[in-house]
Amino acid sequence: MIIVADNLTITNPVISDAIAGTDPKPIADMVRACVAAGADAIDINPGPLRKNAAEIMTFLVETVQAETTMPLLLDTTSAEAIAAGLAAARNRVIINGFSLEPQKCRDMLPLAKTFGVDIIGYILRPDSSVPTEAAEFFEITLELIAAAQKAGVTIDRLIIDPVVAPLIWDNGTAHNRALLSFLSRREDLAGAPLQSIAGLSNLSAGRAPGEKKRLVQKTFLPMMAAAGLDMVLMDVFQADVAAVARACDLITGEKIFSWAAIG
Amino acid sequence: MIIVADNLTITNPVISDAIAGTDPKPIADMVRACVAAGADAIDINPGPLRKNAAEIMTFLVETVQAETTMPLLLDTTSAEAIAAGLAAARNRVIINGFSLEPQKCRDMLPLAKTFGVDIIGYILRPDSSVPTEAAEFFEITLELIAAAQKAGVTIDRLIIDPVVAPLIWDNGTAHNRALLSFLSRREDLAGAPLQSIAGLSNLSAGRAPGEKKRLVQKTFLPMMAAAGLDMVLMDVFQADVAAVARACDLITGEKIFSWAAIG
Repeated sequence: MIIVADNLTITNPVISDAIAGTDPKPIADMVRACVAAGADAIDINPGPLRKNAAEIMTFLVETVQAETTMPLLLDTTSAEAIAAGLAAARNRVIINGFSLEPQKCRDMLPLAKTFGVDIIGYILRPDSSVPTEAAEFFEITLELIAAAQKAGVTIDRLIIDPVVAPLIWDNGTAHNRALLSFLSRREDLAGAPLQSIAGLSNLSAGRAPGEKKRLVQKTFLPMMAAAGLDMVLMDVFQADVAAVARACDLITGEKIFSWAAIG
Repeated sequence: MIIVADNLTITNPVISDAIAGTDPKPIADMVRACVAAGADAIDINPGPLRKNAAEIMTFLVETVQAETTMPLLLDTTSAEAIAAGLAAARNRVIINGFSLEPQKCRDMLPLAKTFGVDIIGYILRPDSSVPTEAAEFFEITLELIAAAQKAGVTIDRLIIDPVVAPLIWDNGTAHNRALLSFLSRREDLAGAPLQSIAGLSNLSAGRAPGEKKRLVQKTFLPMMAAAGLDMVLMDVFQADVAAVARACDLITGEKIFSWAAIG
């Protein structure tokens, strides 16, 4: 399982200030800390970028890839920013992402085609609400595959994000059970390998002690791993959650188990 | 998921000495500690009991049920001890257990029939080795069901134990992956609900720090829970592992999630 750091985000005031001031140091520090914590890839989330979108994403991509050769996820709704980030990137890039919203299909998918990169497709209804039945996960996935193929993006370039729901939502647990069922059967449906990613922090949204939030994350992550999740987007500074992510690989993977690789 | 304490076992010298001296106090203390730690049932494991089998199991059952009304698992290869324990029991009893070894089928299954209790069937080859392919898990399960039915024990009385393998075994991870696949598809195969139990401590057999052992247990348990495991046999004094077991129920179950129920 590839661990993608969600830490380089506009919701962190240190990062927000660094973006506003075009100050590379806090961003470089964050990237180095994510690498040290065991990240395999970095999600760059500068928010919706209504102003100076291209300049900001170019600055971020250049700053991050001065520190690491890891893959970068460009995580914004601004197609202008994604295009600028792709032009500036030497590292592998993944576009994060598109959905069945007509504007996102129209703006994002051609960038994946032009630059020949992977793109994340969210399992959301066109109105951005989440499905709760496994059948609807499948229907939306087939629509995402069709939209991608229509834009010239082949299925091997698509990474499906089934969008983990907060447990405190009325339908949160039902949604997440359907998500597991979907993940484990997705390749039978697609008739082909189908990459997947999930963001873990959403699970524990709401007011609760950090220890309880980490406990539910550590409990749900192995369930997704056993269902074949390929990539997890998570706070890599939660060392105990990251340790579970690595233990998942040793238990579900083809590697030879060794105690030295655990913990 | 029902949490069965594996702590009342002959491998603990305190319990071994208490059995040898017919001293109820250390046994009663252990049962109270298991109840306080959140156990839902108690496994009584006095070893193979080559001498005084009936007397020892009667003493244990009477001592344990003086402390709790929880279900008791009678965990020994001595059919004489199981028969005595069943005769002495007021609490619900589960026989733990039988396998395709001809002697175990012959001795244990009639007791389940006579006393009308549930019985655990181990997914082991007749020579007691473990399968590594999901297909063989299914074949052995069908043979266990057939053996039970031949003895008049209906499928709803059967609890399948797919026997977790130590990760350090050459085929340990392959076996445990097949186990997950078996668990999640077992009811489609059986064409009926089919109860399941797994012992968690076997997973981390071998020399390793306790923290690493608990980490792999906490990682594998949610995988089994998502695959529909009904009962887990575990060291309930590992509070962090027990907390994960309870979190599994809140994530995979039909209950309304609440942060107050976590941790």
